[in-house]
Amino acid sequence: MPTYKAPVDDTLFLLTDVFNIDRYNNLPGFADASSDVVEAILGEAAKFAEHVLTPLNRVGDVEGCTRHPDGRVTTPTGFKAAYKQLCDGGWLGISAPAEFGGQGLPATITAIVNEYLVSANMGFSMYPGLVQGAVAAILVHANDELKKTYLPKMIEGVWAGTMNLTEPHCGTDLGQLRTKAVPQADGSYKITGTKIFISGGEQDLTENIIHLVLARIEGAPAGTRGISLFLVPKVFVKPDGALGERNGVSCGSIEEKMGIHGNSTCVMNYDGAVGWLIGEQHRGLNAMFTMMNEARLGVGIQGLAMSEVAYQNAAIYAKERLQGRALTGPKFPDKAADPIIVHPDIRRSLLTMRAFNEAARALVMWTALKGDVAHRSGDAKERQAADDHMGLLTPVVKGVLTDGGFNNAVAAQQVFGGHGYIAEHGMEQFVRDARIAQIYEGANGIQALDLVGRKLPKDGGRALNAFFSEVRGFIKEHAADEAMKPYVGPLGTAVGHMQQATVWFVQNAIKAPDNAGAGAMDYMHMFGLVALGYMWCKMVVAARARIAAGSDAGDRMKTKLVTGRFFMERMLPETGAHLARIQAGAASTMELPADAF
Amino acid sequence: MPTYKAPVDDTLFLLTDVFNIDRYNNLPGFADASSDVVEAILGEAAKFAEHVLTPLNRVGDVEGCTRHPDGRVTTPTGFKAAYKQLCDGGWLGISAPAEFGGQGLPATITAIVNEYLVSANMGFSMYPGLVQGAVAAILVHANDELKKTYLPKMIEGVWAGTMNLTEPHCGTDLGQLRTKAVPQADGSYKITGTKIFISGGEQDLTENIIHLVLARIEGAPAGTRGISLFLVPKVFVKPDGALGERNGVSCGSIEEKMGIHGNSTCVMNYDGAVGWLIGEQHRGLNAMFTMMNEARLGVGIQGLAMSEVAYQNAAIYAKERLQGRALTGPKFPDKAADPIIVHPDIRRSLLTMRAFNEAARALVMWTALKGDVAHRSGDAKERQAADDHMGLLTPVVKGVLTDGGFNNAVAAQQVFGGHGYIAEHGMEQFVRDARIAQIYEGANGIQALDLVGRKLPKDGGRALNAFFSEVRGFIKEHAADEAMKPYVGPLGTAVGHMQQATVWFVQNAIKAPDNAGAGAMDYMHMFGLVALGYMWCKMVVAARARIAAGSDAGDRMKTKLVTGRFFMERMLPETGAHLARIQAGAASTMELPADAF
Repeated sequence: MPTYKAPVDDTLFLLTDVFNIDRYNNLPGFADASSDVVEAILGEAAKFAEHVLTPLNRVGDVEGCTRHPDGRVTTPTGFKAAYKQLCDGGWLGISAPAEFGGQGLPATITAIVNEYLVSANMGFSMYPGLVQGAVAAILVHANDELKKTYLPKMIEGVWAGTMNLTEPHCGTDLGQLRTKAVPQADGSYKITGTKIFISGGEQDLTENIIHLVLARIEGAPAGTRGISLFLVPKVFVKPDGALGERNGVSCGSIEEKMGIHGNSTCVMNYDGAVGWLIGEQHRGLNAMFTMMNEARLGVGIQGLAMSEVAYQNAAIYAKERLQGRALTGPKFPDKAADPIIVHPDIRRSLLTMRAFNEAARALVMWTALKGDVAHRSGDAKERQAADDHMGLLTPVVKGVLTDGGFNNAVAAQQVFGGHGYIAEHGMEQFVRDARIAQIYEGANGIQALDLVGRKLPKDGGRALNAFFSEVRGFIKEHAADEAMKPYVGPLGTAVGHMQQATVWFVQNAIKAPDNAGAGAMDYMHMFGLVALGYMWCKMVVAARARIAAGSDAGDRMKTKLVTGRFFMERMLPETGAHLARIQAGAASTMELPADAF
Repeated sequence: MPTYKAPVDDTLFLLTDVFNIDRYNNLPGFADASSDVVEAILGEAAKFAEHVLTPLNRVGDVEGCTRHPDGRVTTPTGFKAAYKQLCDGGWLGISAPAEFGGQGLPATITAIVNEYLVSANMGFSMYPGLVQGAVAAILVHANDELKKTYLPKMIEGVWAGTMNLTEPHCGTDLGQLRTKAVPQADGSYKITGTKIFISGGEQDLTENIIHLVLARIEGAPAGTRGISLFLVPKVFVKPDGALGERNGVSCGSIEEKMGIHGNSTCVMNYDGAVGWLIGEQHRGLNAMFTMMNEARLGVGIQGLAMSEVAYQNAAIYAKERLQGRALTGPKFPDKAADPIIVHPDIRRSLLTMRAFNEAARALVMWTALKGDVAHRSGDAKERQAADDHMGLLTPVVKGVLTDGGFNNAVAAQQVFGGHGYIAEHGMEQFVRDARIAQIYEGANGIQALDLVGRKLPKDGGRALNAFFSEVRGFIKEHAADEAMKPYVGPLGTAVGHMQQATVWFVQNAIKAPDNAGAGAMDYMHMFGLVALGYMWCKMVVAARARIAAGSDAGDRMKTKLVTGRFFMERMLPETGAHLARIQAGAASTMELPADAF
């Protein structure tokens, strides 16, 4: 059975030493998040993740969810009690506004806690994850009555939320969606259509489920400009707040899928279900877009979280499994064999995961903090810069962290040899669970296209220029420091590759957009490497400061210096191959007629 | 439901145009394999794979195998009838010696047929695959009586075979194995112990199962030099060839695993089971080694086969699924959207799979032909050169083709978006099935170590020098041809990287073997890219000749030229990143103490 220990120390190192969270104390909510408070919160979150959710992870995979003939859905044994604990602990509302019952803390704290929950039990964690997404959409776009009616119960956790976008014939291309909404005399709408892949569409954890549904109002324009967003409760809410009749929405079936079996993935049938408009008519896609950064950051966190828990278990196994001898001679001659961690290829694999995890955690925190600044700062310029960062980095975080998360789950499984293929060790579940994060919330190819086609050129490249300027500034600042050369040297080369690739797009892709499309995935991963490399450099500076100050965490800090060097020497050089592929252009990619495939 | 069409045309192109199989007509069995005969055999194999095995693939995944309380194991519905068809068609004995009932054709033909069977149904194909492996071991090492008793029925298919190596505490490191063999007065042995991960260890397809078992004779030396190989039939064979009593071997349980559910993976309990020695006492590992090249080539073929079938289904879906518009404007303005094959990133993904598949098929055939030469040539020098090739290329074929096979199955699944995660489309089964090939028959990290630690330095580097010399010779031969420059130019760069890496190992790894271990995986993949690149160059030469001759397969040949260019521009440049990682050495990889992980 896999184990999990939440990386609280590493989180705190990032919050205090690397990102100095205290400097945001002028923002609403941050002053309440003092080191002591944050440490206490993370400690409690860790306990909940380790002791309540981790033991339910395999149960969720084995049992899955069951749809009964009457449309009810039962979640795996133990999920209901755990969900109640989650609500009782107030975990759903950490960052929600106090006026609706939340604690108003920075969203960064929620992002951190979510990493722990996902590592412990990804299938379970999606239920509260979807609630948080629905809450965010309602907060920004719904009218006061809807907010007052629905938010307190959702933030408390007794009602859940879902997102209904996909239909059988369209996912990415929502302009094709057919679910229709017919206006009623009382201002409500009747919604009819079929939605698929609805996570938590039906379950037995909460008294009510608040569905957010994209649909087309009768007579609306075709395409994406005719889509509206509706709030459709599973059970009607009476004026006094009590629950009334069932609405015309039901779960038609549960999908049989590769993983995340603990989460019910439903086909939802809307049959004249009553819904209320959220935001403006025909502007539903815009309403979705405003919460997309948070949602995609959340999926990126899933990639990191799966990589972290997979790494932890692979590291434990590598220290225990006795097999073969070190290339340099036996290290434990009294034992039947050496533990496999003596083998360079096992270490290469473990360090690849670890160097990714620690930098990915930093990248998530950096981006989440920018999200808080974008929402909470009183300074318009600061808000804009933070929003630029969010827009630019979000597809990178989503695409790169989920690809890395899956690859690392596979690598961790490989450390177990044949035992990794056997279900009882749990490593193959991590692989199956991690896989979905590359697909949903915009498949990673779409993230790459969003980055290259939309985010790079936006506002004349303002966001990208700010990124380059920050990284270049950092390199310059530390260039003369001998101890930093093994870090900033390779970072300089990598950011140079990225700048060359950017120039190549400007010169070659504006008139021939297929050149951008063919290089988009490479650019996204190159950007990810540069961003992770920059995170490593910042962590190394902080670790060196701690060592110089004689910290009692000295060994952990020295490990950071070595892991960072591994990243620079072994992982960052991939930017050169990405550049070569980008500069190859789209010719051979686009030349063949479709029927040649 | 996934479909499959065996790539017979591509196989025949390789056999005739690229490798000119006729030139081997002086070898036993080859003259019988005229183009007509081979084409007929492949056509029949294709039919069997497409119409009998493909429809059973999902059945096998969903039903899996069942162990009954009495130890019997039932395979999925339809497997038994399909296995009978396989036997009736004589497929098990294509390349087996005529004196034991086989057809004596080149092993290359078996390798080709196996690709088709695995693509159609990997779980099923492992049953005959294991029989072929056991037959090979018995043929080379067993005495005449054992051969006469067991081979004809195994080659006919009415008896199956298995390999029993792994024990709970040891897989890679067989020196630790504990299963013991006690000599009996009649020359037989009594075998006692537990073996795990035994594919086809028990099943209901055949009347008898012939287990090949590694065990330690009482009093044998410790370590790998004290292991012997035994033949242990499930049911005793009477002197007249009829089946008698059950032997003391039984299936204790079936493993719950990630994929290949159609194959029964058994824990086998040997409880004083009677067995007969194969080969010499204490030389069991050597007996296994002589058949390891064929077994590993077979696993490499599994990687190719899964990549091929995954590609085919992704290509079909990409041409059918309407979603979004081409970056250069609508291609099918009358439809709701363009098929996703208009998108450069989808094509990049499809071409990555396809460029791998076609070159991997060539690499398999090249290596299988060398295997035939090594076994059948009357010329000692030719045999040695072929054997050198087999030894050197086998870990590359196993490691690179199975890593590629898995990655491509994942990429093909990604083309399906959310639908790829749903079981009914079958794409996620390909991913789960393909995963095992990276692990068994020597995990890929072990392949890399075998390559770098054993195969490179062997005989003063004779095998590697022959490889370099052949590739360099080819490049020189075509260097002046303008039309070949886009192919041999990049190949020259890549082989240069590989030579630099080799020199680096010579200079840095002999005294510090961790430098070899830390770079082994990169070297193996770099070697794979160079070998696949060389295959592409050979295919391009053959395709150009066909085009020049006005072949009616002209379009297919032109597609080869484009796909080859894609490989050279987009996939081969990765050798540079591999070289950088190798030259980084082992320092950061080995520096941390084990408890830092």
